This record gives sequence, structure tokens and C-alpha cells, in this order.
Amino acid sequence: MKFLEKLDKAAEKNNSLLCIGLDINLDQVPQSVLNKEDPIYIFNREIVNATKDLVCAYKPNIAFYEMYGIYGLSSLIKTIELILGTGIPVILDAKRGDIGHSSAAYAKSAFEVYKADAATVNPYLGKDSIEPFMEYQDKGVFVLCLTSNPGAKDFQSTVYKEVAERVMEWNKYGNCGLVVGATKPEELKEIREKVEDLPILIPGIGTQGGDIASTVKYGVNKDGNRAIINSSRSIIYASREDNFAEAAHEAAKDLRDNINQYRWAK
Amino acid sequence: MKFLEKLDKAAEKNNSLLCIGLDINLDQVPQSVLNKEDPIYIFNREIVNATKDLVCAYKPNIAFYEMYGIYGLSSLIKTIELILGTGIPVILDAKRGDIGHSSAAYAKSAFEVYKADAATVNPYLGKDSIEPFMEYQDKGVFVLCLTSNPGAKDFQSTVYKEVAERVMEWNKYGNCGLVVGATKPEELKEIREKVEDLPILIPGIGTQGGDIASTVKYGVNKDGNRAIINSSRSIIYASREDNFAEAAHEAAKDLRDNINQYRWAK
Repeated sequence: MKFLEKLDKAAEKNNSLLCIGLDINLDQVPQSVLNKEDPIYIFNREIVNATKDLVCAYKPNIAFYEMYGIYGLSSLIKTIELILGTGIPVILDAKRGDIGHSSAAYAKSAFEVYKADAATVNPYLGKDSIEPFMEYQDKGVFVLCLTSNPGAKDFQSTVYKEVAERVMEWNKYGNCGLVVGATKPEELKEIREKVEDLPILIPGIGTQGGDIASTVKYGVNKDGNRAIINSSRSIIYASREDNFAEAAHEAAKDLRDNINQYRWAK
Repeated sequence: MKFLEKLDKAAEKNNSLLCIGLDINLDQVPQSVLNKEDPIYIFNREIVNATKDLVCAYKPNIAFYEMYGIYGLSSLIKTIELILGTGIPVILDAKRGDIGHSSAAYAKSAFEVYKADAATVNPYLGKDSIEPFMEYQDKGVFVLCLTSNPGAKDFQSTVYKEVAERVMEWNKYGNCGLVVGATKPEELKEIREKVEDLPILIPGIGTQGGDIASTVKYGVNKDGNRAIINSSRSIIYASREDNFAEAAHEAAKDLRDNINQYRWAK
């Protein structure tokens, strides 16, 4: 199944635009999980089992797994394998990008080693850095356009419109999307108008302070879809006690419902 | 020892500005190596032992190790450990970059898991994406400025000067450098004039077609140093037969000497 179809199905089945960011941090995981073998996988498994009826996607950021070395990456592979069994798509947040033949190695890693359904890529190196990802036609490719952090103003402000336009042009297999931060509602609106039905991955609500109402209003397409609104820490660490999975369920349900109330309120 | 000191020492001891890119590709490795346990490590070890008196740095590109999954990354860790024993600095070509706290995880990975002396980073996400790397004050941080590939024209041409200026400004611990492709000699000249003694990592000679004479002439500082001129495939795959290590030695020696003849010829 193509990525976009899988995404739309999950969004429809769970009536949700919510994506949960699986950004593991063992300092925030309860002691009872740390005492087990492979705590990263166990923590993720409990979170996924408690939220899989509430989301349209999961987004593990590989940075947090690399930080734990070989062990962390092994747990990431097991986590993705588990999620693939639920039918919910996995977006590997990897922000990779290199010259052509090196980017081909990264694409192989994201889609064949980690087996993600989609990956985020960095556009700084241009078309030949993104193409090897796009050539996996069944996979999704989310190109960083305008990110949610303070540093977005440093270089992106000059080129983000150009990035959005080029991605539309290069998207010959229909498998591209963009990453646009929730902290930039005006720009999100402008980009959504330009890219029509392209999926937009939107991080930056929750801990980073993006406003939910404007994120949903400006992020969705004309049918109220194709916005993938990510929240990480405020859901997976909603509780640091043994009830973390229930707390994540509650936080995810609240956020999904909160998003939905703005979804068709244009 | 700080990265820059380690780099200068290696460059002086080996009278070399040559950096060898350890971009593993098992399709190009002789059968006799493939038959051994851990062929990636064995191949790298033979290359390093044959060239460690000829280079100022080694640059493994992590993309090619990720492509081989957990096994590839384990071999990368062993390879870096081996190189650290030679006194030659290791630049991990990772082109990482993410929002602040995620970039901190990448920096931890590059410098504490892989234990590299320096890493390449992508500037698209701005200052807070680069800072966590710079805060490792003994490590080197090479920021992508203008790359050697065709896609460099897509977005970099608008911002690369700004990137060079900002990096100079942000470099409060004196541990930053830039990446500028050998395929852009005029721009390299202009950047070198602007950044004075900053180390510049220069890929793109050899297979990618950058001219050696202009790369050296425009890449070095006023003392004929601080250019790190990378070659990967034309050295490590100089022969695909059992004499690959000797062939790499010869190719490295020729290239080092070729570089040196232009070094003080300004």
C-alpha cells in the first residue's frame, strides 16, 4: 500500500490527525520499565498499545535512539516492526540529506533497514539529495520547509517558499510532503494554499507552544485532512509513574478531540 | 587535545592536507575480505594501516554504515576506535541537524557513541541546531556551506554567504569549520578570504571532478594550511583486487604530493 493511502486510512479509521512523536528519553521513563530487559522497546510498546486507536501516524525521531548507540537503534527497529503490525504508518524523523549516492544510502537505511513508511529529509543539498528517497514510490518523503524552532529564522526564511515550490515540482510520484512548524501559523496558511492536498507534517504544538486552533485551521486541506499534527513529550511523558500508558491514552484522546473540534470549523 | 590542534599536528607530521573518505561499499571490496568475519572493519583497517602516514584526517560517511544496519554501525564504532589509536583525527560525516534538544541527542551520538573528533552538520535549522555540537569544545564542527553536488544550486546559492558569516559569528569556542565543495573554486576563494584561518573541509575532487590546483590554491589559508581535501572512492577503491591496500597507499601518496605542489604556489 502506498504511504498516502495508509495515512488516509489510519486518519479516517481513528478519526484523527494526531501523530505521536516517540522521542525516547530514559530519564523520563518509570523505574519499573527501566528494570526490564529492553526498556526502550517496552516503553514504546506500552505507549503504542495505549494510543493506536487515537492516531494517524507515529513519528520516532532517530536522534534519540542513536544517542543510546547500538542498543537504541536495535530497539528502534523492534519498535517500528511492532507499529507496522498495527496498520498505523511510521514516519522516521531522520532529517537526512547528502549528495546523491550518499543520500541513496540514507534512503536505503530509512526504508530497508528501519522499514519506515516515510522519512523526513533536509533540503539544503537540493534535488539530488531528495530524489533517492522519492524513488521509493510507495514511501512518503517529508521535506523540511519551515521548522518550529528559533533557528528557523536564520536561513529558512529566505528559502522556504522556494522549497515548497520545488517540492511540488519534483513530486512526480505523488509521495512528497512538507514539514512546517505549528509556531508559524501565517506561513502555514500561505503554504497550505500553495500546496493544495500535499500532506503537511506539523510539529511544534504542546511543549514548543504552537497554538492548536490556528494550526488545525491553517494546516488542513479543504476536506479537513492531510495535516499530521505531532505531539511528543506532552503525550508520552504525561505521567512519569507506572500509569504512563493510561496517562498517554488520556492525553492523546484529549488532543485528538481538541484538534477535531477545529477541523471542520473553517 | 582540541580538534584543531590534533588536525594541525597530523597535517604537519604527515606533510598532508589529504583526508580519506571511508565510504564503505561491500560491492567494491575484494572477495578475500568479504570471506572474513567483519569485512567492513577489516577493509577499513587495511586502508588505514596503509595510509595513516599520508593523511591529515579520515572521514567516514555514516550513511554507508547505516545502510548495513546494526552490523555496519558496529563496524563503524570499531573503525573509529582503531583510527583514534593512530593520532589521526576522525571527522564523522553525518550532516546532522535538528531542533535544539534533538540536535543535542545527535551531538551526543557523534561525540560520545561514535567518539569522533569532529562532525559535519547541516545549517538549515539554524543556530540552535548547531549549538549543541559547538558546546563540545574539544570537538570540531564542520557546517555545510556550499556542497559539491548539482543540487547545491537549488537553495544554497541564496544563503551560503550568510552561513559562512553566521558561523564566524557563532564560533565562540574556536571549534567550527565549513564544508565547501571543490567543484566551486570561485566561491571557495571568496569564502577563504572571508573566514581567514577557519578549517575548510573540501570534498569533490576525484570522482566528482573538482580541479586540484584551484582547490588547493583557493582552499588553504595564508600559511598553506587548514584545507582538508577529501577523496574517497578514487583512493579506497583504487584497486578492487587483493592489492587494494597497496593501491590505496599509492593513490594517497600521489594525491598528497600532487596537493603539496600547489600548496605554497600562491
